[in-house]
This record gives sequence, C-alpha cells and structure tokens, in this order.
Amino acid sequence: MGVALLAVTASELPAQGATAGGTNLEATYAVIPRPSVLTPASGRFVITATTPVYTASEFRRVARRFVRDIGGAMGFDLPIADRRRGSGGITLRRVPGIPREGYRLDVTATGIVVQASDSAGAFYALETVKQLLPPAIYREAEVRGVAWSVPAVHIEDAPRFPWRGSHMDVGRHFQPKAFVKKYIDLLARHKLNRFHWHLTEDQGWRIDIRKYPRLTEVGSCRDNTLVGSHTDDPAKQVFDGRQHCGFYTQDDIREVVAYAAERMVTVVPEIEMPGHAQAAVYAYPFLASTTDSIPGLRRMWGVSPYIINPSDRSVSFMQDVLTEVMALFPSPWIHIGGDEAVKDQWKANPEIQARIRSLGLKDEHEMQSWFIRQMDTFLTKHGRRLIGWDEILEGGLAEGATVMSWRGMAGGIDAAKQGHDVVMAPGSHTYFDHYQSQNQASEPLAIGGFTNVEKVYGFEPVPEALTPAQAKHILGAQSQLWTEYIPTPRQLEYMAYPRLTALSEVVWSARSRRDYGNFMQRLPVHLQRLDALDVNYRRLDGAAIVP
Amino acid sequence: MGVALLAVTASELPAQGATAGGTNLEATYAVIPRPSVLTPASGRFVITATTPVYTASEFRRVARRFVRDIGGAMGFDLPIADRRRGSGGITLRRVPGIPREGYRLDVTATGIVVQASDSAGAFYALETVKQLLPPAIYREAEVRGVAWSVPAVHIEDAPRFPWRGSHMDVGRHFQPKAFVKKYIDLLARHKLNRFHWHLTEDQGWRIDIRKYPRLTEVGSCRDNTLVGSHTDDPAKQVFDGRQHCGFYTQDDIREVVAYAAERMVTVVPEIEMPGHAQAAVYAYPFLASTTDSIPGLRRMWGVSPYIINPSDRSVSFMQDVLTEVMALFPSPWIHIGGDEAVKDQWKANPEIQARIRSLGLKDEHEMQSWFIRQMDTFLTKHGRRLIGWDEILEGGLAEGATVMSWRGMAGGIDAAKQGHDVVMAPGSHTYFDHYQSQNQASEPLAIGGFTNVEKVYGFEPVPEALTPAQAKHILGAQSQLWTEYIPTPRQLEYMAYPRLTALSEVVWSARSRRDYGNFMQRLPVHLQRLDALDVNYRRLDGAAIVP
Repeated sequence: MGVALLAVTASELPAQGATAGGTNLEATYAVIPRPSVLTPASGRFVITATTPVYTASEFRRVARRFVRDIGGAMGFDLPIADRRRGSGGITLRRVPGIPREGYRLDVTATGIVVQASDSAGAFYALETVKQLLPPAIYREAEVRGVAWSVPAVHIEDAPRFPWRGSHMDVGRHFQPKAFVKKYIDLLARHKLNRFHWHLTEDQGWRIDIRKYPRLTEVGSCRDNTLVGSHTDDPAKQVFDGRQHCGFYTQDDIREVVAYAAERMVTVVPEIEMPGHAQAAVYAYPFLASTTDSIPGLRRMWGVSPYIINPSDRSVSFMQDVLTEVMALFPSPWIHIGGDEAVKDQWKANPEIQARIRSLGLKDEHEMQSWFIRQMDTFLTKHGRRLIGWDEILEGGLAEGATVMSWRGMAGGIDAAKQGHDVVMAPGSHTYFDHYQSQNQASEPLAIGGFTNVEKVYGFEPVPEALTPAQAKHILGAQSQLWTEYIPTPRQLEYMAYPRLTALSEVVWSARSRRDYGNFMQRLPVHLQRLDALDVNYRRLDGAAIVP
Repeated sequence: MGVALLAVTASELPAQGATAGGTNLEATYAVIPRPSVLTPASGRFVITATTPVYTASEFRRVARRFVRDIGGAMGFDLPIADRRRGSGGITLRRVPGIPREGYRLDVTATGIVVQASDSAGAFYALETVKQLLPPAIYREAEVRGVAWSVPAVHIEDAPRFPWRGSHMDVGRHFQPKAFVKKYIDLLARHKLNRFHWHLTEDQGWRIDIRKYPRLTEVGSCRDNTLVGSHTDDPAKQVFDGRQHCGFYTQDDIREVVAYAAERMVTVVPEIEMPGHAQAAVYAYPFLASTTDSIPGLRRMWGVSPYIINPSDRSVSFMQDVLTEVMALFPSPWIHIGGDEAVKDQWKANPEIQARIRSLGLKDEHEMQSWFIRQMDTFLTKHGRRLIGWDEILEGGLAEGATVMSWRGMAGGIDAAKQGHDVVMAPGSHTYFDHYQSQNQASEPLAIGGFTNVEKVYGFEPVPEALTPAQAKHILGAQSQLWTEYIPTPRQLEYMAYPRLTALSEVVWSARSRRDYGNFMQRLPVHLQRLDALDVNYRRLDGAAIVP
C-alpha cells in the first residue's frame, strides 16, 4: 500500500492538470509545476529493464499496450526502444523491492519515469498516466486541439488486495464477445484484475466443449424467456416467445483470455455443478438425478430442481469438461459453482440414496461435498485451485478450496478461520444486480435489494472477527452481475457503473485512506472518462437508459 | 474497374492460401506458389510515396491503421519506415494513373508491394491483404500457432461506383457510439465508403446542437415505445412504459467522424426537414405548423403529422443547425431528408396558406420545394451539396441537389435525366429492415417486405432507361436500416449481414463479373471473418438471435 492518499482534484492541481482526477490512486503525491507533454517529438518509450531478461519483453508488451491505447486519441504512436536516445519520453524501469502490482511514477518536464518490480505494476503506472492526461485520451480516434499534458507528480502506489474482481453471468442472458472484451478493458482501467466469467446456468450453457458438443448444440438455446419479475403472480406471467441463444467458441475464449492477459486481468471461468446445471442435464440426460424427462432449458428465474447426479459417470463428465476448461484458461483458479444445489431430486432418488450410504456419507450435503472433492483433487493434480460459492463449506470443505462468500460474510469468516483463502462477494454490498435507488419504479426492473454507490464505497472486505493472521486469507473482493433482468450490454453497464468504480477503490486503497466525500469530488472527472469510452453508467441523478 | 474477376475459393488457391477468400474483389488474379509470411523479422513497412509530399503522410496513416488492425491478432507491430532497410515487408508506392480508390497488389515470397494513386486505394489494397490472411487476423488479441501467410498474387482492382454506402437510423432506436464505430469499421472492411447517419426523427433527436440545447434536452428522450407492430389492431396496442433516450455529444460526433476518416469512410449526416421532425417541433414549438399543443415525441411508428412551419424563423433555425452540422462533418454532402412530409397541417394553417400565395407558389409541394431550396442555397454558399430523398423532386428540384431514390428507381431516373447526381436506395433491394425470410414467423419482428441475400446480390443500380451520359450521374447505391423494429446493436447486425456483404459486391464489382453462385462459394470463409469480429449476422440457415 502506498504512503498517503492521492487526492487529485481540480483545485489541487496546477492549471495544466486541471482536467486530471485519479480514481483508486493510493499514493504519495506531489505536484510539481512543470508538466510533461507527450508529442510526436517527445522522444521514445524506453525500456530499461534488463534483469531478469524476460522482464524486458514483458515491459515491452506493457509499453505496446499503452502506445496502442493512447495512440488512437493522440493520432500518433510513441516509438518503443530498448535504449535511450536523446531525452524525454517514458522510461519503464524494473526495480526489485517495489510491492507486487505497485509502482513509483515520476513525471517531470523532462519525461516520465516508471519504476515497478513486475509488469502489472508498470501497467498500472501507465493507467495512472492516462488518468493524469485529459479525459479525451480515452477516445478512439484522433482528438485535435488537445495538449497531451501530464501534470508533474511523484506517486507511490500499490493495491491493498491481490483479488480485485468482477463477475458476469452470461448464462441467463448471453453477452456478446465484443462486449465481454469492452467490459474487461474497463476493469483494467479501474486496476481490477479478476474477471469471473459465469459460463453455465440452468438457462444456458455458453462454452463450447469439444468432447460434448450437445452442451452448446442443445444447451445454448432456450426457446422462451420470462417477461417481468419471477415474483409476479404465476397466473399472470408472460413469456416472450423468442429463442435466446449464444455461446463462445474455443477460439473466442482464447481471444478473450489473451485480451484480458494483455490488460493484467486473469479470467476465472465458472462451470456450475452440481446445481444450476439444467442446460447440461437437458443436453446429456445421463447427468440427471431424476428419471423424469427434462423440459428443456429453464425459462424462469429462481432455482432449478434439476441437478447433476453424483455418479462416477457424472464425475468423469465434469472432469472432462474441466480438462478442456484448463486448456483454455491459464487461471490458477477454476470456479466450480456449488451454490444453491437443491437436494430434492437426490433425496427422492433411491440410487443416489444408496450411493450416499455406500460411500459412508451422512447426508446430501456430504454427498455434494464428496462430489466437489472429486473436482478439488482433480484440479489440484493439474496444478489448479478450486474455488466455489460458500455452500461448499456445507458437508465439509475440500482441502485446496478457496471460498467465495456470497451469503454475507459468515462463510468467508468460517473458511478463513479454517485456513482457507477467501474472496468476499456478499450480496449486501457487491451484488450489482440490486437496485441503485430506493425508488424502484424509477429504475429498470431488477431482482431486488438496494445497493447504491455510497454503500459500495463503505464496504469493508476484512471482517473484524478475524485475527491478523486469519485476515491474510482474505484475498480481496468482487462485484456480481447476475443477468436475469439484464438482457443487454447497455443495461449491464448501467448496473455496473459507477458502483464498480467505487468498489475498485475499496479493493485498491488502504482502509484508512478511503473517504467517500473525496471520492465523490473526484468522480465527475472520472465520469467524463466513462463518457469518452461510451459506458452507459447510471447518472448520479438516475437518468434513463436505452435497451 | 479491374480487368477480371477474382474468384478466390479454397480450391483455387495453393495450400498456404486455403483459408483465404476475398469478397468484393474485382481483379486480375494470378496464383504464384510461394506466399509472403508476416513475422516480427519480416521487415518494415516502407512508404515510398514521395510526390506529392502529402501522400507520404497519407500513406503513413494508412500503414499505421493496418499495423494497428493486424497487430492485435499477430501480437507484434510491423514497424513503419520511410526508406527500405533490408528486404521484405510491405511497400506502399504512389503510382499516378491508377483509378481512384483502386490499387495493384503484388505478393511474392520477398514481400508485398502496393501501388495506388490515392490513400483510399492503398487502404483497400491492405484490406485485401487482410482477406488473404487467415480469418484469425480479424481477432483483437494475439492468436498463437498461426502462420500469417499471404498467398502470392497479382491483383488489379478498383471500384465500379464512388458511392458505396450504408444508412443507419438512430432516431427510432438510439444506437450507442461504440456500436456506431464498430459498424463503420465493418463498412470499411467491405470497402464501403459512405456512412449515412440518420440523426433526427419524430421519435428522437440525437445530435447535440449548442445553439438549441432543447433539441436534445427535450427531444432525445421519449417516454414510451410501441411493443409489437404498428399495423396491429390499435385497440390492442401495448406500450412498454419505459423511457428511451440517447444522443451524441459534439465530442462523440467528432470522434466518430475521425474514426471513419481513418477508414476512408465519409460520414454523411442527415437532419430531417420539414417532416420527420416531431422531436424538434416538440422541443421548439415555434417550429410547429399547428397551434395545437404537441403531445411529446412520437411513440408510434409510421408518419407524424407534425412538420416544420416554412417560416423565415424556421429557415433560420434549420440553417443554424446546419451551420453546426457543417462544422462537425467535413462531408461534401449534407442530407436534409425531405421525405414523407405530410402536408395536412400546412393545408389547414391559414398563415402558411397565405405564405404560399405571397411567395407566388402553386401548392404545398412547391412550398416544400421552396423550403428545401433555402437549404440548398445555404449549403452551396458554404461549399457543400444538398442531398435528399426523392420527394425533393416534387415541386421542383433544387439546383445543386443530389437525389436519393428510395421509392423504387423512378425518382433516380428522373433526377439523372435532369442532370442531377443520384444515389440508388430503392426499398425493393436495399431496405434491410425488411424480412430476410418468407417465413416471417421464424424471424424477429420486422417492418415487412422480403429481401434476401440473393435479391440484394441481383440488384443493378444503373437503370436501363438511362443513356450512358445520364448513367454517369448514378453515384452508386446504399443500404437502409430503419430501426423501428431494431432496438439493439445485435439485432441491427442481424439485419445488416450478410446482406450488406452482398451489396458491397454490387457497388464494387463490374456488372458483368457478378456471379451469385461464386459469391455463395466465397461467403462461408467471409462469415468466419465476421465470426472473428463478433458480428451477429443472420446464419444462412436462419438461426435465432439474442437481443
């Protein structure tokens, strides 16, 4: 963590920095009167990292990303060189000892110097440079008449948490690849580093699995979707009568993963089991826990009773799926869901009851725990770590598991006390499918709840119930976007921002440095950046959205 | 026009070119067995254009665009130099005498040489190079394990028409800026060069005009939208009860215009008058032709009776609007609409009747013609040309006007015979809001009609009724996408592609060279490109879409 809060507001900056306004900057900050100005003649991008050798190429990638990003608005590309010729320009320097993902940034009239011990730190330093430039830098085509001036500063900055995430459910409503990339790009601009991609659901399976083609052939298309709320009177429910389809090919997924990696974002895939699997069960009925015929994909919201049978064949099937998933996603963590697995069909099925007894298990919770352990062992054997929703605590937590605490903080506290890593994702503060206003009638239909920007900003991921040693297991936190009531990218952006901007400071800044009043002073300039990026954030006065 | 048809099919290419398949290539074509392979060591981009001086910087911009576009998938950027060092790489050479927008392309094992007389020709040559590369080149992040091999060819290519366009209505349903850019990028990849941006409508005004802020403050938000078809029984019509809002700031528009210019696309703005102006009339009631109060923005489809009063004050107002429009859009053409102006309110208004008489006009058609002439004179004085829908023929065509023929070809024939330029946009072949299948129930709700890919491909923009001299006035053709029934970008892509791919060959290739069977052979490879670009085109078997 940095040393002091960076409070970049218009009034605190010299005239040439008046358009700047950082978000999630935790830094020592000093304004020096002469800015650095980027021009076609301002010199080269100099990579001085020479040891270890790989760092030079990593830093070069970071420099290339930056050059490509800002080159659109500037209309010229800064050249990248490995050695300095002349003065000026931007220097990336590897300096051991700087915290992971942290950086030091010095901007003077003679140029910009970035020091970092890893490429993520160099990357975030350059994201800060973008924030110090006029918001027009975020536009994609040349903006004339703007001086690309960076106020002179010294900043020391590093994140509080290593897991700074955002989750997106593409099962209920498919979100197109181009939008997934845009979303990931926005995460990176907020110095978030985990994209939790919820790929499978009762209402749709969205990832091509070569060995089991019916998962997408059959499982990616539902024939009908509820209009209105699933809490409406069932007698009055209306369905839209339209197919809703979509999935990502393996080429698409490789592209998204590479795109994210270029932006220091790890894509954490989620394959839901044993519940939230009606699409899979429909595609491959041998996975079912019932002999009843399965009525297609779920077209209602809420929880499906169709869950995966914990048979050896199901275990093999899901491990086959995970094998392809591991080949596509280099993420150290693989999310297996584990939440809301209604056990009614397991209770009613004599074969499953017999299996529980023959395995010496006490009940259905232990049966689920056994099933999850098969995945944990499998993933561990392949050098990955299992992560699941906090229901995986029930019936006993698998050895290597990381817990995502969504039903409040209790599951996370329990897991941390058991020595397991935890990601905090409580519904109360991080479910961005909740309403942003208490006047629900003025908002697009949502699942319920009330979570505004102030509440998000006030979220504290480390519970007081933990000792300092236990608290080290809190990897960080993330937002959740379940898409039952979020059919389109525009609406998803409306639900995500600016709440996600607030959360990005929660997971980056030191607890003691967070100041909501200060954040709200800096937010308007940040919204100009989101305007330039065409993000359909919710206006502070709650303006309407388009589909 | 080129000399012979390029029929790039898998079977005609050598093994290393098996993934290539051009669209809208009109060319002399020769397969030479050794391809050129782009690698980080394959040398520089060499600009050898030195005369006239500006060409070098224009060609450098073209090279930069190409390097940025292909650098995503390749994971490296070809450097750009003004002089050759070593062999290989890509050379852009200015050669006078090559047709406008045309090019010669030579790919051999020692490199790629492009010859063109203008930057558009150089740009299109490099678009062809992309088509000769594997479709994975269209992905945005590094694709590993692909050899970036270009089959060795000699191609001579040039477009048949200078106006190769596509229209988008953002009035009925606002389309976000990011999508507008994506759409323009796709036009460029199809060698289309006009984006006709229909910015104002009865249902919404989408462009910020500084002098008249109420146009967007009031005119960009309607409070309700029809669900279902406007031809449904009025007694059963349902409205969605949701606001629909959106407009582009002037910064947004400048960005879109610059983005398009980098891709050789001219953005032609349309400001509708005197009809299709209910949003403007509601925002500034002095524009109205009636003293009745105006019931907000139109929330139904079909034609509004609220049209602009042809007063001096209205003329000044619309000219003020055009002044800001001209400052934003460098397009030589400014579109003033002119279609479907229902004259009932003019007939019923004694002041307007008196004005018709005092101006010595015969009727309301001549009144509209007078109004349009005020705009024509104004635009001409500022060095621009007026373009309008074919209703501007009624009551006498303004001197400098170009006619867009939408009610069939008759208006275009009439205008060309009068010596006016014409853009063909007939509903029969170029209205992509029409159904793509005769089984309408299997398609998303559309406005009507039936226009499939084959019909589009068979469209001939030059009517036989014209003499060769008159036919020179046919600038080209364009597609129309009216968005009454197209609320989202995904659905708009579904309506646009692959019909727009077919139209791109209609306006590029020589008439004698068009061959639908050959096109359909080449189309599947092209659809792989659209997959890589995440375009939600209609599958050839008519698969379902998502919102």
